[in-house]
Amino acid sequence: MIRVGIVGYGNVGRGAALAVEGNPDMELRAVFTRRDPGSIKRQGDRFTVLSCGGQDSEPVPLSSMVNEIDVMLLCGGSATDLPEQGPHFASMFNTVDSYDTHAKIPEYMAAVDAAAKTATAIISTGWDPGLFSMMRSLFEASLPEGMSYTFWGKGFSQGHSDAVRRIKGVKHAAQYTIPIDSAVDAVRKGERPIFTARQKMKRECFVVAEPGADEARIEKAIVEMPHYFADYDTTVSFIDAKEFLANHSEMPHGGMVLHSGNTDSNNQVMEFSLKLDSNPEFTGSIMAAYARAAFRMSQEGLFGAKTVFDVPLSYLSPRDRTDLIKELL
Amino acid sequence: MIRVGIVGYGNVGRGAALAVEGNPDMELRAVFTRRDPGSIKRQGDRFTVLSCGGQDSEPVPLSSMVNEIDVMLLCGGSATDLPEQGPHFASMFNTVDSYDTHAKIPEYMAAVDAAAKTATAIISTGWDPGLFSMMRSLFEASLPEGMSYTFWGKGFSQGHSDAVRRIKGVKHAAQYTIPIDSAVDAVRKGERPIFTARQKMKRECFVVAEPGADEARIEKAIVEMPHYFADYDTTVSFIDAKEFLANHSEMPHGGMVLHSGNTDSNNQVMEFSLKLDSNPEFTGSIMAAYARAAFRMSQEGLFGAKTVFDVPLSYLSPRDRTDLIKELL
Repeated sequence: MIRVGIVGYGNVGRGAALAVEGNPDMELRAVFTRRDPGSIKRQGDRFTVLSCGGQDSEPVPLSSMVNEIDVMLLCGGSATDLPEQGPHFASMFNTVDSYDTHAKIPEYMAAVDAAAKTATAIISTGWDPGLFSMMRSLFEASLPEGMSYTFWGKGFSQGHSDAVRRIKGVKHAAQYTIPIDSAVDAVRKGERPIFTARQKMKRECFVVAEPGADEARIEKAIVEMPHYFADYDTTVSFIDAKEFLANHSEMPHGGMVLHSGNTDSNNQVMEFSLKLDSNPEFTGSIMAAYARAAFRMSQEGLFGAKTVFDVPLSYLSPRDRTDLIKELL
Repeated sequence: MIRVGIVGYGNVGRGAALAVEGNPDMELRAVFTRRDPGSIKRQGDRFTVLSCGGQDSEPVPLSSMVNEIDVMLLCGGSATDLPEQGPHFASMFNTVDSYDTHAKIPEYMAAVDAAAKTATAIISTGWDPGLFSMMRSLFEASLPEGMSYTFWGKGFSQGHSDAVRRIKGVKHAAQYTIPIDSAVDAVRKGERPIFTARQKMKRECFVVAEPGADEARIEKAIVEMPHYFADYDTTVSFIDAKEFLANHSEMPHGGMVLHSGNTDSNNQVMEFSLKLDSNPEFTGSIMAAYARAAFRMSQEGLFGAKTVFDVPLSYLSPRDRTDLIKELL
């Protein structure tokens, strides 16, 4: 059994807990949280909840857990949690994270690598970065003469929803990113267009306004917001709180990586797509698969920071090599 | 520069030659053929064509090439060529092949592994086995609670076309395997049906009959042929030789791997698909990417028979590690 710990018990942490419990070769030993451990309770949970030092409780000394846990899944955010937690935990444990600030990955990787002297630390797993990165690299290597396209959505965007929520007079907001069908179809047909942001995807907002708020002002503030919305075609629908809770509380997401290449004069199109009813649960599930890889690689002494590009697929599979080759090759 | 040799110059071998020449870090040094080397000529070819011992010419001793070639791409057939060539070449060279007799892969792998004492031999690359195998394994590890489906087509099937051609009175034949849309859609929607062969795909034949042949008899012989057609809905169209040459000389293929899984009560669907205008050229292109991996793995002393499950994606990419992480992660 691979003994797993989870650090951070937000949406992704809960998804990872579900996934670990669904893998018969893994055991969830402990969840570490900054909240009051007593506040995190589910009927029937078999793991313990420990404090990693929040406002409410004394932290459990991590060194006492070194022989109790094989892999730590770091489920904190990329902005402030992981830059600190990544190197800290990798100095004591094998780790897996889903660090997703693309521009800062090299810097983060160097810090984790320096700390992971006797541990395997797989960074930036999940689906983008993660599975989508794997496909971009595989597709380019398969057909060097070609162009890759990543489309996100249809899906709920946390960052864009937050941006709308910060506008005065907005009570609830959900923003969906939606790929434009005609753009996807053009790539599928073997064309290699150069898209503007606007040609590639559109944005759809559902907003619950505060009583008496000026909806026209809110709509204008959204569609003209630089970086977030100004470069896209955006629609805004005002709905009531009841409809919002009923239809916009889930976190569906998805997207696709398309590669339009050619060999000689022949078009060759490769495509990978995800349609996810729960983005954080899927991310947690991918992290659990990489926990298996981190455990196996650490047993072989393959220490340091690793990415999805470094991990052979056999390390992710619960099957043994003979069975994998016989059944899936 | 990775110096590549190609063994066997049929459709896949020609595809591999194109691919090697399209990769800036590779050089095609020699093609080995059983045919008369003089008969294989293309204007402007920069590689030499050597005999590997056919009816027409003396074989070049392979031992003389050991220091000239880094990786041999074995492009012969799985039925009779590779069982002999795989171990033979792996005893002297790093090799890549596309051995595709699924049921005999473990046996073939053992023979190649025993021979590859000081070489890296990557077996069963291409797209199925190959990329599709990678996806089946990745999808299952990502969502252990779920079911995977492989659909082949729409595409030209060499084996089924040959079977039709063996019927008396048939001059030319092309058989296309076509996934049934409603089956694919059901899986995409998150259902997990158990399909019969007939529910999953259908078969379409285009036949040129010999003058005076009984078309009704030919059609009956096709649709009732055990194993090949009896378990499927098959349509047969008789056409003339001119139309056949115009529309059925290419070898398009493709297919998809779908995985319908769930986390808790949420559906999660993963999909990988290929739409190939030329099946053999795509296979050759994948083999060229694995030539890069075989070369790099051999430099690290990772000898023996390997599969696509054993090769980290970074080994396939022409990019160096820093660039790969910065640009594609």
